[in-house]
Parts: sequence; C-alpha cells; structure tokens
Amino acid sequence: MGFTAEKLEEEKVFKDPVHRYIHVRDKLIWDLIGTKEFQRLRRIRQLGTSYLTFHGAEHSRFNHSLGVYEIVRRIAEVFKNRPHWREEDRLLCLTAALLHDIGHGPFSHSFEKVFHLDHEVWSRRIILGDTEVNQVLKAVDSSFPQRVADVIEKTDENKLIVSLISSQVDADRMDYLLRDAYYTGVSYGQFDMERILRVMRPTDDQVVIKHSGMHAVEHYIMSRYQMYWQVYFHPVTRSAEVILTKVLLRAKELYEKGYPFQHPPLLLQSLFREKVTLDEYLQLDESIVLYYFHMWQHEEDEILKDLANRFMNRRLFQYVEINTELQMKQWMELSRLFEQIGLAPEYYLVVDSSSDLPYDFYRPGEEEERLPIHLLMPGGELQELSRQSDIVESISGKKRTDHKLYFPKDLLDNAREHEREKKRILDILYGKG
Amino acid sequence: MGFTAEKLEEEKVFKDPVHRYIHVRDKLIWDLIGTKEFQRLRRIRQLGTSYLTFHGAEHSRFNHSLGVYEIVRRIAEVFKNRPHWREEDRLLCLTAALLHDIGHGPFSHSFEKVFHLDHEVWSRRIILGDTEVNQVLKAVDSSFPQRVADVIEKTDENKLIVSLISSQVDADRMDYLLRDAYYTGVSYGQFDMERILRVMRPTDDQVVIKHSGMHAVEHYIMSRYQMYWQVYFHPVTRSAEVILTKVLLRAKELYEKGYPFQHPPLLLQSLFREKVTLDEYLQLDESIVLYYFHMWQHEEDEILKDLANRFMNRRLFQYVEINTELQMKQWMELSRLFEQIGLAPEYYLVVDSSSDLPYDFYRPGEEEERLPIHLLMPGGELQELSRQSDIVESISGKKRTDHKLYFPKDLLDNAREHEREKKRILDILYGKG
Amino acid sequence: MGFTAEKLEEEKVFKDPVHRYIHVRDKLIWDLIGTKEFQRLRRIRQLGTSYLTFHGAEHSRFNHSLGVYEIVRRIAEVFKNRPHWREEDRLLCLTAALLHDIGHGPFSHSFEKVFHLDHEVWSRRIILGDTEVNQVLKAVDSSFPQRVADVIEKTDENKLIVSLISSQVDADRMDYLLRDAYYTGVSYGQFDMERILRVMRPTDDQVVIKHSGMHAVEHYIMSRYQMYWQVYFHPVTRSAEVILTKVLLRAKELYEKGYPFQHPPLLLQSLFREKVTLDEYLQLDESIVLYYFHMWQHEEDEILKDLANRFMNRRLFQYVEINTELQMKQWMELSRLFEQIGLAPEYYLVVDSSSDLPYDFYRPGEEEERLPIHLLMPGGELQELSRQSDIVESISGKKRTDHKLYFPKDLLDNAREHEREKKRILDILYGKG
Amino acid sequence: MGFTAEKLEEEKVFKDPVHRYIHVRDKLIWDLIGTKEFQRLRRIRQLGTSYLTFHGAEHSRFNHSLGVYEIVRRIAEVFKNRPHWREEDRLLCLTAALLHDIGHGPFSHSFEKVFHLDHEVWSRRIILGDTEVNQVLKAVDSSFPQRVADVIEKTDENKLIVSLISSQVDADRMDYLLRDAYYTGVSYGQFDMERILRVMRPTDDQVVIKHSGMHAVEHYIMSRYQMYWQVYFHPVTRSAEVILTKVLLRAKELYEKGYPFQHPPLLLQSLFREKVTLDEYLQLDESIVLYYFHMWQHEEDEILKDLANRFMNRRLFQYVEINTELQMKQWMELSRLFEQIGLAPEYYLVVDSSSDLPYDFYRPGEEEERLPIHLLMPGGELQELSRQSDIVESISGKKRTDHKLYFPKDLLDNAREHEREKKRILDILYGKG
Repeated sequence: MGFTAEKLEEEKVFKDPVHRYIHVRDKLIWDLIGTKEFQRLRRIRQLGTSYLTFHGAEHSRFNHSLGVYEIVRRIAEVFKNRPHWREEDRLLCLTAALLHDIGHGPFSHSFEKVFHLDHEVWSRRIILGDTEVNQVLKAVDSSFPQRVADVIEKTDENKLIVSLISSQVDADRMDYLLRDAYYTGVSYGQFDMERILRVMRPTDDQVVIKHSGMHAVEHYIMSRYQMYWQVYFHPVTRSAEVILTKVLLRAKELYEKGYPFQHPPLLLQSLFREKVTLDEYLQLDESIVLYYFHMWQHEEDEILKDLANRFMNRRLFQYVEINTELQMKQWMELSRLFEQIGLAPEYYLVVDSSSDLPYDFYRPGEEEERLPIHLLMPGGELQELSRQSDIVESISGKKRTDHKLYFPKDLLDNAREHEREKKRILDILYGKG
Repeated sequence: MGFTAEKLEEEKVFKDPVHRYIHVRDKLIWDLIGTKEFQRLRRIRQLGTSYLTFHGAEHSRFNHSLGVYEIVRRIAEVFKNRPHWREEDRLLCLTAALLHDIGHGPFSHSFEKVFHLDHEVWSRRIILGDTEVNQVLKAVDSSFPQRVADVIEKTDENKLIVSLISSQVDADRMDYLLRDAYYTGVSYGQFDMERILRVMRPTDDQVVIKHSGMHAVEHYIMSRYQMYWQVYFHPVTRSAEVILTKVLLRAKELYEKGYPFQHPPLLLQSLFREKVTLDEYLQLDESIVLYYFHMWQHEEDEILKDLANRFMNRRLFQYVEINTELQMKQWMELSRLFEQIGLAPEYYLVVDSSSDLPYDFYRPGEEEERLPIHLLMPGGELQELSRQSDIVESISGKKRTDHKLYFPKDLLDNAREHEREKKRILDILYGKG
Repeated sequence: MGFTAEKLEEEKVFKDPVHRYIHVRDKLIWDLIGTKEFQRLRRIRQLGTSYLTFHGAEHSRFNHSLGVYEIVRRIAEVFKNRPHWREEDRLLCLTAALLHDIGHGPFSHSFEKVFHLDHEVWSRRIILGDTEVNQVLKAVDSSFPQRVADVIEKTDENKLIVSLISSQVDADRMDYLLRDAYYTGVSYGQFDMERILRVMRPTDDQVVIKHSGMHAVEHYIMSRYQMYWQVYFHPVTRSAEVILTKVLLRAKELYEKGYPFQHPPLLLQSLFREKVTLDEYLQLDESIVLYYFHMWQHEEDEILKDLANRFMNRRLFQYVEINTELQMKQWMELSRLFEQIGLAPEYYLVVDSSSDLPYDFYRPGEEEERLPIHLLMPGGELQELSRQSDIVESISGKKRTDHKLYFPKDLLDNAREHEREKKRILDILYGKG
Repeated sequence: MGFTAEKLEEEKVFKDPVHRYIHVRDKLIWDLIGTKEFQRLRRIRQLGTSYLTFHGAEHSRFNHSLGVYEIVRRIAEVFKNRPHWREEDRLLCLTAALLHDIGHGPFSHSFEKVFHLDHEVWSRRIILGDTEVNQVLKAVDSSFPQRVADVIEKTDENKLIVSLISSQVDADRMDYLLRDAYYTGVSYGQFDMERILRVMRPTDDQVVIKHSGMHAVEHYIMSRYQMYWQVYFHPVTRSAEVILTKVLLRAKELYEKGYPFQHPPLLLQSLFREKVTLDEYLQLDESIVLYYFHMWQHEEDEILKDLANRFMNRRLFQYVEINTELQMKQWMELSRLFEQIGLAPEYYLVVDSSSDLPYDFYRPGEEEERLPIHLLMPGGELQELSRQSDIVESISGKKRTDHKLYFPKDLLDNAREHEREKKRILDILYGKG
C-alpha cells in the first residue's frame, strides 16, 4: 500500500551549503520539519565532541537530517519510472529519511554508553508516541507511523526502501561524509555523489550499483575510510569523549550516593535512575547538558568539578599509544600509583580503543552489519563489491584497532610532593618502564 | 615600543574550512586560545539567530576570532620589510585581532539592546580585569593589556594598527563575509581576499589599497552589500530577533514585578538589575540562555511561556512590509484591536526597521564611522574609494531603510471569538484598511 | 507549431566542470553534437587571445555551447507546466541554445573586424546550407532549420524563446560568466545561477524575474561588470588582439599587393578577397591560423615576420593610458617620429578603446540592445530592473571608455641610432611632452 | 655549489585556477617563461586526446609547468631553515621544475611510439642546445644548464633535488592530479596538497613524509589510482589515441612509399625519416599536427583520409573488452574477415592494453621506477609507505591490465555487400563466436 499527501502550493527551499538547496514540495515534510521534536535536533550537534578538535564541526543533526531527506528525494527522481520502483513508496522513503535520527539525544555516543540508551528505540517511541511528529504522520494514514518506524528500524518488509536509508551506500552515509567534510574543512570526505546517484538502480530487495559506477563507489569507500581515521577517530575528539563520559559517570555516582548537589540536576535525574519517559527524553538537548556542566564547575566534589571544568574549557587529557594492551601488572601498578598521588584511576586513567567506536567503513558479511554493496553486472547478475574491487577487498577484511591511554598530564606535572611516583608513572607511560 | 614573545617549538595548526589552515607560531597566541574566556566563544554563535533562517549558520565566534587572527597574520607577512611597518607591532596586531570579539555575550544584538550592554566595554574589562586572558597578556609586558585594549577600542595612537582591525576593509569584515557565506551556503560573500591582501600597503596612519586593486575592493564592497540584504537583514532572522528580544523584556518585567519564577533565573538576575560583575558576565553563554528559555516554556505567565516556546520551536512571527510608517491613527487602532483580542501589543505587535541594525556597507564621512578606504594612486597621493569608483559611489550615499511589522499570525487565525476585530486587523495589515 | 523528436535509449552525459554534468536525452541533440560543424568548435577558443593573459583560459566554444544548452534544458524543467510555456517549444529552445555560436570562426573579434565577417550571418548559412547540421535539423521537420535560425537571429515571432537565448539575463551570458571565471580562475564571475533559474518566469513575450529574486540578479549584473573590467577588457589581452589584427591586416595587404608568399596561405585567400564560401569558412579554425602564423615567422617581409613572431611567442606591445585622446598635433608628431626610426606607424602605433569592444554590461534602452531585465512585481506588473535596483541603476547609465596606446617598447629601446627621436617619443608617451 | 640570481623589482603573479596564484620573484624564472621554447608549451595539450572524452581537458603543458614550479616554490618555503636543505639549491629546483616538460612535443604518447622519440632526450637537447632557454640559463652560470638537465634526467648527484621533481610524491604528480581533476571536472583527483607540503621533510637523499601525514599521502595515492582508471585510461581517450597513432603510421608509410601528397607535410618529413634536428623538433606543436590532419581529410588515399576525418570529427572506434587475449585462431579469423570486407586490419582492428600506458600509480621496487615514498617514523627511521599502509600495500603489488579491441563499428554496419562476414565478425566480437 502506498501513501500520498498534499502538495504545498509553492515549493519551499532551504539554502544548504552541501546540496545547495533542499527542496520541499510535500506538505507532510514541511509539517514534520516544523514539529518541536524535529526542531530540537538543532540543539544536538552532528559530531558530538568533534568541535573541540575541528572548530568548524559545529553543525547540528537538523542539518544532516535535511540533507539525508534531500538525497533520498533525488534518488526518487532517478528511480521514477524504473522497474521495481513504486512511486507510492516515495513519501514513506522521504519521511523515513527525514526522521531517521529523530531519536538522537545530546552527545549520543557517551550518553548511550553511560545511561544504556539506544537512539533507535527512542526514534520508535517518538514516532509512535504522543508527539507532534506522530500527529503529523497519522494525518496521512493511521498505519503510516508504524511503517515509518519499521523502515527506520530496518524491519520493514520492503527491503528496497530500507536499503535507501540504511545500507553501505545509503543516503545517511553519503550526507554525513559530505557534510562532515564540509564543516570540518577536510577534503577527505568528498566523492562524486551525483555520479553515484546516476548509477543506482532499484531491485526487488535493495539498491544496487551499475557496474560502470564501480570506481565512483570505490572512491566513496575510500573517502569513508579516510574520514574515519582523520576525523571520526581523531584522538583529541576521543579525549573529549572520555572526559564527557567520566563527567556523566561521576554525576551519576554522586546522585546514587545521595550527594547534595548545590544545583540539583532536575532534567537529568531520570537518566541517572535509568527510567526515562518520552517527555523527559525530549527535554534533553546539548544546551541543557552544557548548563549543568557549567554549574558543576562550582560543585564541591573535586572530581566532578575538575572534570566539568576540563570539558567546558577544553582542558583535555593527554594520551599515549599502547600498541599491545598494557600488561595486567603494569596496569595495576599504574593504577596504584595514580591512587597514591590522589588521582582516582577510574576517572583519570582511561583506556580507549578505536574498535569500541560505532563506525565501520566496510565489512561485508559481519553480523549486524548493514547490507553490503552489490554491483549490477553487465549480464544482469549481482556481485558483492569487494569481489570486484581489489581496493575494497583489501580493506574490508581487516579490522584495525588502536588503543590509547588517556590521563591528565597537567595534574601529574603538578604533583610536586610525589616526585618518585610521578617519575615512575611517566617512565611506564613513555615506554621506559 | 614593541613587544616580543616566545615561539612555539613546533608550529600548531587548526584546520579551518575558510582559510584552510590557521597557523600559530607564537606561544602567546596559543596560550590565549586556551584561556577559558576565549573558549567561552565556542558557546556563542557568530550570527545570533540567523541559524533559524540559514540552518548552516551555526558557527561560533570562536571560529571567526581565529579567522581574523589568521588574516592579520597573513597581512603581517605581506607588510614585512615594507616602509611604515614595524615588525615589533606584529604581536600587538595578532593579539588584538584574536581578542577583538572577546567581550561578546550570547545573542549580543538583543542582549545589548535589552540590558544596555556594550560588548566593547566588556572586551576592555576582560582584557584588563582579573581573567586568564589578562594573566597571559601581562606575561608579555605589564603595559601590554592596556595596548591591546586600546587597539580594540580604536583609541590607540598607532592608527595603522587600529585600521587593520577596524576599518572599512579590515580583517574582521573580510573574515566574517567569507565565513558567513561559507556556513550559510550563499555565494554572495565570496571575493578575492588573496588579491586584496596583495594590494594592501601600510602608511603612517592607515592601511591603503594600491590603485590597481580597485576592482577587487569594489567586488568586496558589492559582496558586503549583497550579504547585508540577503543574509544579515533577512526578515526571518529579524523575526527571531524580535521574539528573542521580547522574551528577555518579558522576563525582565516579571522579575522587576517580583513574579515568582518556578525556576529562578539565577544567572540572569544581574542582567535584569543591570548591575553585572565581570564574573557574572563571563558565566553567560548561549547554552545558559537556551536552558532558561527551555524552562520558561513551563512557566505560568502566558506571555513568557508563549514567547519562549516560539523561540525554542521556531514558531516565528509573520510580517508585513510597511513602506511608510503606519500612520499614528492606524497604529493606535491596531494596538487597540490587539488588546481587544487579548494579545498584549507591546509583545505581539512589533515594528522593526533595518536602519536599526548595526551594519553598514559603506558610508564614508558619517560620524562614528570606521575609516573609509583610500586608494594609493600611481602618483603616490591617496583618494577615497568612492571618488574613483562609480559603483561604490552609487551605493555609498544612499541609506536604504525598510520597515516591517511583525505579529503572530497563528494567534490571530485562532482568535475565533473575535471575528470582527480579526477581520479589521487583517484588513489593516494586508492593505485594505 | 511544435517539434518533437526521438529520445535516446539511455541518457548520455558529459562531465562538465561548471555544471557538473550535461544531460542529453534527445537524439537530435546527440546527433547535432556529432556533426563536424559542431566538433569544429573544439578548435576555436571561447575567449580568443585571453589565454595569453590568463593561462587557464584555453577552453573552447564547444565547451560553452554545451553549457548554454544545459542551462536552457534546466530552465525548461523549471518552466514545465507553467502558464505561457509550451512544452512543444522545448526542442527548438534546446537546439537554438546548442547552435547559437555555430557561426563563430577563429579569433572572431579580430577576424570579423579585419575581414568584415559577421558570425550571425554564418550561423544562418551553416544552419540553412548544405551541412551535416542542416541534415540533422531537417530530419525533425523541413521547417525546423529556418525556425532555429530565426531564434538565433532574434527574428523569431516567439519572443519568449528568443529571450531565453539572447536577453540581458540569458543562458548564453550565464554560462560564459561562470565558465570564463572557472577557467581563468578569477572569482568575480560567480553568482547563484540556481537561484536565478528558480525565480525565472515565462511570460508571453519574454522571461522575467520574480521580484524576490532581485538581489540574485543584482549579483549577476555585478559579476558581469567585474568580469568585463577584470577579464574581458584586460589590457594585455587587448595588446594580443591588436597584434593579431595587425598580422591579419599585413598579410591581407601583402596578398593584395601580390607579395610572393614562400608558403601561400591557401585556406585564407578567400578571406583576403572577402569572398568566402560556406565550405571555405568551415575549413577555418585556430590551428589553421596558428599554422600560418607559424610559417609567417619565416617570411621575408619584416613587418609580417615580426608581428607573427610577436603573437606566437607572446612578445606583446606595451601600452600607455591616454585619458583624453592625444591631440592631433601630438599624434602626428608621434607618427612621424615612428616613421623616422623605421617603425611603420600603421602597424606599430595603435590606439585601442574599450568602447570598441563588443561587450556591454547593462544598458537598457540603448539601440540594438538585448532586451532589458524585467521584474515581476508582487501585484503582477513588470518593472525594468534598474528602476528597482539602485546599484543597477547607478551603473547602467554610464558608459566608461578608456583609451590605450599600444606600441613595441622593445623596438624603441633597441633603436640605438635614433636616440633623439626615441627620447622625444618616450617623453610624449610618458607624459612629459 | 649553489646558484643565485637577480630578483625582480616587483613580484609578478599569474592567476591560476588550481593554485590561485603563481608567484614569480626571480628574474631567471620570468625570463625562462618568456622564451619561445617555453611559450611553445601553450600549443601542446597536457592530456593529449583526453579532450575528446572530457571536453574540459583542453589545458596546455604551459599551465602544468607553471603549476609544478609553484609547488616546488612552496616546498622550498617549507624547507627553508630545515636541516639538509641548502637555500642555494632553491634556484636549481625551481628551474628544473619549470622546465621538466620542456621536451614534450605534440600528442607525446602517440608521437613517441610511432617516431621513436623520447621527450627526456629532447628536454636535454633544448636545455643544452642553441636555444633561448639555454641563453637564459647560461647567464646564471656556465655550468647551470648541465645541472638543470641532470636534475630533469634524474642523474644529478643531489638526490634530494631530484626527488622533488621526480619521485612517487613529487611536485609533477601533485600538480597534474589536481590540475587534470580541475579541468576535466571530476572530483577524484582532489587531495590535501597543503597538508602534504606541511609534512614533507628533506633528508640527505630524498624528500620524506612525517609519519603523522601518512593518511594524507594515502589519500593522494588513492586519488592517483582513481584518476588513472577514471581519466587517464578512459577507453574513449584510448580510442582517440589509437586513431591518432594509426593516422601517423599511415602517413609515414605513404611517405616511405613515395606517395604523392597533394599537400606535402613539410614540417613532419624529418619525423618520417626519424632524423629530427632541434630546430625541426621545436617547430612542432598541436596546431601544426591538426593542420596536416585537416589537409589529409582531402587526400586520395582512402585510409589516411578516413582516419584523419575520424580524428578531426571525433568519429572514434568502438571497442569490446577482451578479458583474455583473443586466441590466435580467432584473431587470425577476424583479421581475414576484415580484409575480406576491405578494411585493412593493421589500421582497423587494434588491440590496446592499459598496461602499455605510461602511468603507474604506485609500484615500489619495480625496475626503472621512481623513488618510493618513505615515512619518517617517530623514532627517526624511515619506512617505505606500503609497509605502514594496508591500503597502499593492497594496491601496490597488483598490476591490473585490461585489453580492448578497437574497430570502426560504423564501417562494419555499412558493409552491406558482406552480410555473412559482417555477421561472423560481430559474433566473434560480441561473444557468440
């Protein structure tokens, strides 16, 4: 079953630095953009803490969501009148594209880890719950919210639509690579999206790429690879992430212990208790978080105060590369030494591994993986990309992990009364231990 | 007297989308960037409410400040070894460039109007007061903070340095035009900065432009003209500005009346009283403001609640163009009608004129004006730009003002029990009255 | 009456640096591009001698013609289903756009002046004569070639179509500004074409611009103004043009006098006689011209040899600005002095005025002018652009002329035996006379 | 020994679309650009026949040579004051960069193959022979021309300088990737050159890359890989190359047989005899070649006439992919069939293999290879790039060859009297044989 909806009297456009213009012709899309749940995405940064490394990366998820919508809109134009494409699915695709990140909260990566949240679950709740978004969706058809949620959750039976929004070469990834490259100012994320759109073909159960477009897709995969190592996994960003996580953990720990906050974090309490209602979730955004961090700089608890101050004023941890994981003995020694000089190791001595990060560049066949990319060969059969492309094959098998140890070098340097411990710590960290 | 300072062991760079890289070689600059007062600029948007019109315009004053510094750094390279340029002034120029916006608070335009603040005064206080910035500056020389403040305030005796930071073709304007164009995605702000840098020449008391570079400067003036009308004066941005101003005015009014806020706006109280200490000022940023606006959506006061909600969820006022100002009679009638249908006219019926805006594109000779642009003619004499350029002359004399009337069309539409008043209001607004 | 034609089985694209892709869906267009008359445009540079000033400006009229076609194709998409637009005119528009420059020969500006040619006449002959282009056009309909010629000659009764190809804001100008800016590398020619396409509206007898798009059109007019002064009127390009013209004049003079060319310029003889057949015209291109210039470097005639050598090896004339035209007396003296030192003044002393150049940036109301730009006001009436826009008004009335005197400074410097004459010449030229 | 030279009074600049500006401060460089041998590069396209595939690719070797010079100029700025760098080598580097392609003739790839030329040999002759270039070089020092020739030939003892001009990550390659990408309009060739320049370090015998810049170099290698497959090896370009080669071979064959050319190709005769003097070589450029091709369209010899016409009017051969080389039997059968229908197989049935092409993307360790890229590791030791980078390793070992069979499909289609042979040919070609 397809869905149709009212057209706007006159097309509306948004000026967009990445796609030049975002075109809106459907009243449904216009109304969704106007809901308060969608406007809230303006207050959530697309790249979390990356702005502390790349000062240009201050763009919001609102930006990106419009971009994904626009790409799907263009794909739908390319697909028009092609076999396997049903024009009545267009509206469902556009809506799912626009709303695919609606469940994200502030600094998702850290918040999800600390408070055991899952933005996909929240997307579903926002789409199906008592929200303005749901109101707008229901006006199309009572079954429409459920379909949109299914597509976003990748459980919808129409696999072609799902693959537009989430596969290895979907609108989501194409937009974020181009957009993050634009705002950070790095050139790595650029690829020829227009060419890729031209060689996309719908099939029964997925979007595939005409064989002649293989090199364009290779280029896109290479861009992704570069962006992960140059931008998304940047060690300074990870340092900020580490601190952010530790601030949240400390605040939660204090809350659980009944610590008397000078300024009770009302809007975060449900998170600390891990029982969050839809309404409470929707109140969260990055200005709320920054407000509390700001206040915590004046709390009495030394650790909370110090960590909040570090985040607000970008006084990040230093790091050393640890090629093999530190042996248990060394680790325990370091931990003990940190305690001896008064630095709680659970907050000030942090191992972070890139393999913990939620990004992958291309790993066909792994569990829980997005659909791999298939090429449509001249004879009509499909071939998985890495079987045709040496370059993609060469990187798709390997998992590259790096481990870094983060710690507050400034505090170590200031630990004047503990010269011996300090020396030993530095010897271990900088490889003479 | 000149100032010198320590060099960094290795040059540091920031990736910047506008200038590609920002290069830092002086320890002083690096240390200033690390101060908490400077980091605070990350939480203040460069273009205030423009992000509600151009979703890409989410960049901060931190961004822009680095950009102005970088341009001055490049100019200093061009000036090196030229007559009138003293290499020992370089550090003062770089510092003033970096810190020229340090006194800005959140949503400056509205805040300054409502609370009678002046960011230039605050720049001085931050530079001379008890701050990390002041600490870092004093380490150069005890007289250094004062000199930096003088340059930023344009009172320094060295007019050449002052003109680098504030004149009609200064580093400040060059950066913001390029940067705002980049982030909004409009093409109007582009001009050939590299060419302008090449034709700049130092004189005793100002930076001038070689005659052969006249067309490049014309292009820059035209870009400015375009940016003002297309971006800075955009009526939707002004609508957001109107609402923001009214939220602040309402909160202030309530505070003065002793209204019992459910959630007292602690960090804003000194603003309401218009007695703000340096410490209090430095606590302000846009996440603080958004936090309170968020809270005010749940206050009992209908006006505060409605206006805060409008700002947070981008439910802006509509507007009509009023070519000549509405005659007193009509204005009074409208005002009375608004009251009759329960809309306080002081909050819901707002005239906004572009001539109130703090931008000018080029008006040589006006009072309080930045220095006009002088061309260095082949014979060595100086000529004011508009005497040489027809185009610049043609726009520099004229003052273009537009007046718009902003109001909540949605509330009017919903005023079901007041059909007669509503009809009359719409007749007046839409020109049948 | 409208024309229709066969569609290609699969859309063809050309990669284009300015428009990203040029899309071809009509077999007619594809076939026209394949004709030898159209392929010949690959051997004619778009900007004549400008490549001797801007080394990037080596692009051909083939490039530009595809670009104009592509812009009209996009306009036709915008116009689809609008009042006043007839879908059956689409093919005629596309064809006229593609072929509008088909009559151009090598270095048109100089050749037309020296040999009294007119590329518009040749366009007509190529379209209506015995050519591959004519064959392809006739296959659509026997009346089709005539209609295409009429549109290109601006005599077609359908003024709307004519205005798409030749008016003040037509596809021709939009493409060449963007393209010439791209290849020269200057930033002046950039404007927001996509925005202009969005605000174009068809009327009965012309394309007009929605009032809300006025600033975008202002920006385009400013870009044009800049490009003329910075690129098209560049004095070095004009110096090359002067020399080219003089080479042709000398060769013609020699031919007329029966000079025994070592290597008879067979393909140019009909030009010298000013009786050129269609076949002869179509044999001409810039490699032919450069071949003869190359050969003429070895002729015995000193003037031809010297001038050809100058053009080939970029040994251009120097110039002095002459603000008012040199008085007759001085001119006659200079001329006599040049003769005395053995430099034929008709070849070596050349006044060139910018007002001779075939470009105009915006002069509504002048005779023989392309249609001015009309804005579609909110009430539905039309207003000429310069009545609404201060900036456009300010430049549209004025005619800016500059005069330059070109001469071979190197030969003067080498005139060792004529020190007195030389000194006098330099005194006159450099203003002490 | 180092070389020094006079500075220009005022820096000169060329506007360049790729590097924005090319800066010239040395009189030597300015004078070299003005020589006729260097100006001749304006008449030789950088990408040979690629303009018949990518219409934007009309840029000349003049363009590229300036670009390589500019990159080396910037590298020299980065190297200034670093260990291993001698400021007195700067001028030699700049000169070698500017002149590295001075020996190229028209359509080098085909001409070198057909006439057994080698542009490196000609570079040496131009630099050391009786030329304007040699005059200018000798003015620096009598030994200077020889040093320049040595650097270009990679035989100079100073390996560091050689590696700037010819290694796997030299100024030559960086410029052509960026430039060819710019003019063709493809996005594949973009990489962050500024970053690479920042991480380059001089050593005793080569330029190396700081380890932290590895990803930037990976990106560059990937760009190269993409450009080869998308642009340089494009099958349509190769089709044009095949035809060009065959035109030359036919003309040579006819010349050798004493064929009476209607229009004797005077400037090519020495090539046909393979005895070319320096003067004769310098007379060649692409307009000369196109002139003769133009004339040959009217020769009596059917093959020459047809092939010349194909090249001029872009009537290229079609191709089929031949995955394994056609077996001898099939090949002989095809050849016989072509003869039967009157198509000389030596001109009309051509196998072309990408492995014949003179490009390589990265093959460390192969014979005659340019120097591989070395990374400067944190400890100070050097490591070859492909040992550190999985991606580079994965592509550097493999040699990818493709074979294509080119033939004139249009002539086959027109072979009406040979239906049987034609059918058999098509069956073999399109895989049913």
